[in-house]
This record gives sequence, C-alpha cells and structure tokens, in this order.
Amino acid sequence: MKQLFLFIVSLIAFCTLGAGCEEQAVKQSNPRLENLMVRIAELEIEPQFIEEYLAILKEESGASVQLEPGVICIFPMFEKENPYQIRLLEIYASKEAYESHLQSPHFKHYKEATLHMVRSLELIDMEAIDQESMPEIFMKIQD
Amino acid sequence: MKQLFLFIVSLIAFCTLGAGCEEQAVKQSNPRLENLMVRIAELEIEPQFIEEYLAILKEESGASVQLEPGVICIFPMFEKENPYQIRLLEIYASKEAYESHLQSPHFKHYKEATLHMVRSLELIDMEAIDQESMPEIFMKIQD
Repeated sequence: MKQLFLFIVSLIAFCTLGAGCEEQAVKQSNPRLENLMVRIAELEIEPQFIEEYLAILKEESGASVQLEPGVICIFPMFEKENPYQIRLLEIYASKEAYESHLQSPHFKHYKEATLHMVRSLELIDMEAIDQESMPEIFMKIQD
Repeated sequence: MKQLFLFIVSLIAFCTLGAGCEEQAVKQSNPRLENLMVRIAELEIEPQFIEEYLAILKEESGASVQLEPGVICIFPMFEKENPYQIRLLEIYASKEAYESHLQSPHFKHYKEATLHMVRSLELIDMEAIDQESMPEIFMKIQD
C-alpha cells in the first residue's frame, strides 16, 4: 500500500503543479515524445474462441507493459454492443521499441496461440493531436 | 522538476512493486473502477475547418483532464493516412462524472463552436478487458 499511496500523492501533485509547465520545457525534458508510435488495432474474434482469446490477450498486454520499458500503453477494450469486436490503444516509445516488442516471447506466444481465433485485424496508425502536452500519465521514462 | 522526479520515481516503484498485488486487493481499494465509463469517439471533420477544429479540441480536452477530477483521460488522435478522421479515447470515473462533463463551460464551448465543422460523429461504448489490473496510469483518485 505504501507505494500506492506514494504514487497517488505524486500523481495529484504532478497533475496539479505540472500543469503550469511550459510546452517547450516538456519537449526538452522528453525529446523522445516526438518518436512516439501511436496505433489503434481493431480485431474481430471468432465467437467460439472469445473467452480463450481474451485470457491470452490480457496476459500478453499486461506482460508487455510490465516487462518492456518501450511499451508505454497497451489498453485492450471490447465494444459493449458487440463483444467480439476488440480494440487496443497501443503507444510505443519509438519504432525500435515496437520492433523489439514484436520479438518478445509473450508477443510471439500471443500471435501463435490466437492466429486461428482472429477473423479480421486492422492496424490504424494514429498521431496524438496534443503531443507536446500529451497527458503526463502516458509518459514512462526509459533507462 | 521536483514533482516530475517524484512522480517518475513513484510510477516506477508502483509499476514494479504493484504488479504483485492481488486483483481482489486492487478491487477493494478502488471500488470505483467498476463504475468507469470508457468510450471511443470517431469524428470526421470538414477539411476546410480542420486546423480550427484541432485547436478547439486540444483546448477542450486539456481543460477537461486538468479541471475535472472525474475526467480520467481524453486522448485525441487523428489517422495518419486521413487527418480528417479523428478518434478520442475517453475515460470517465463514472456516468455522473460524464454527465457533469457535459455541463462544463469548456465542453459547451467546444460543442457550440465546432458543430458546423463536424461531418459525422460516432460514439462507441467500450469496456476495458483487464479492468481489475487496468494500467495504473489510468487511475486518478477523486476527492
């Protein structure tokens, strides 16, 4: 609980005080912001495999964010009105971080294990509109 | 910079140490997680208004996240291959937080000022797949 408390206090402090930062300062202290890779993945899953698919996806996205410094966010969702339609918001620190992610054991396992469950897959490259002051919650500093 | 440092240290500590938390413990300490409202908005903008639209959207989404405790995330993006196609990931702490957002001066201004710029708008209700251990970066505690 201690780290949760510390985290919340810092998050509140950061959100409250950090709002005054100059955009330029943010840019300078985080030059890598400009290399971010943002993507939405849209998948349709074969209904008979949906539970199995979700379990594997959950494991893979969790492992990616926890183990890979360059994976800033993989946020998986499904459409409420059509639970076989999956969408993921993916944010990588750079193209290199994404390439490295593709080589990770957890991604390879996910890809192989779910290939027959996926009816369709579309990858849509996005760009953050407010890149300079992108929500600080998305920032994760690499070593 | 001090709060940024504190934030980063806490974020790393939380991500590293927090990963071992039992799901149930997370649920108990964040009962409101179950009330989250997650949505993707898809808009097509009239090309001649795109710059003006983006400026207003940027201001509105920034103000919402900064000023409203119940607005956890409004993350606006555009498609790289079709910059008139806008998507937003929106996360609200609850239905009430969303209703309150609709009444905020910045949202009302956005809505009125951009009405004639929007060619189409679709709102898609989503559900986070991994709600219990949803990326901690999305957590923002309300008073």
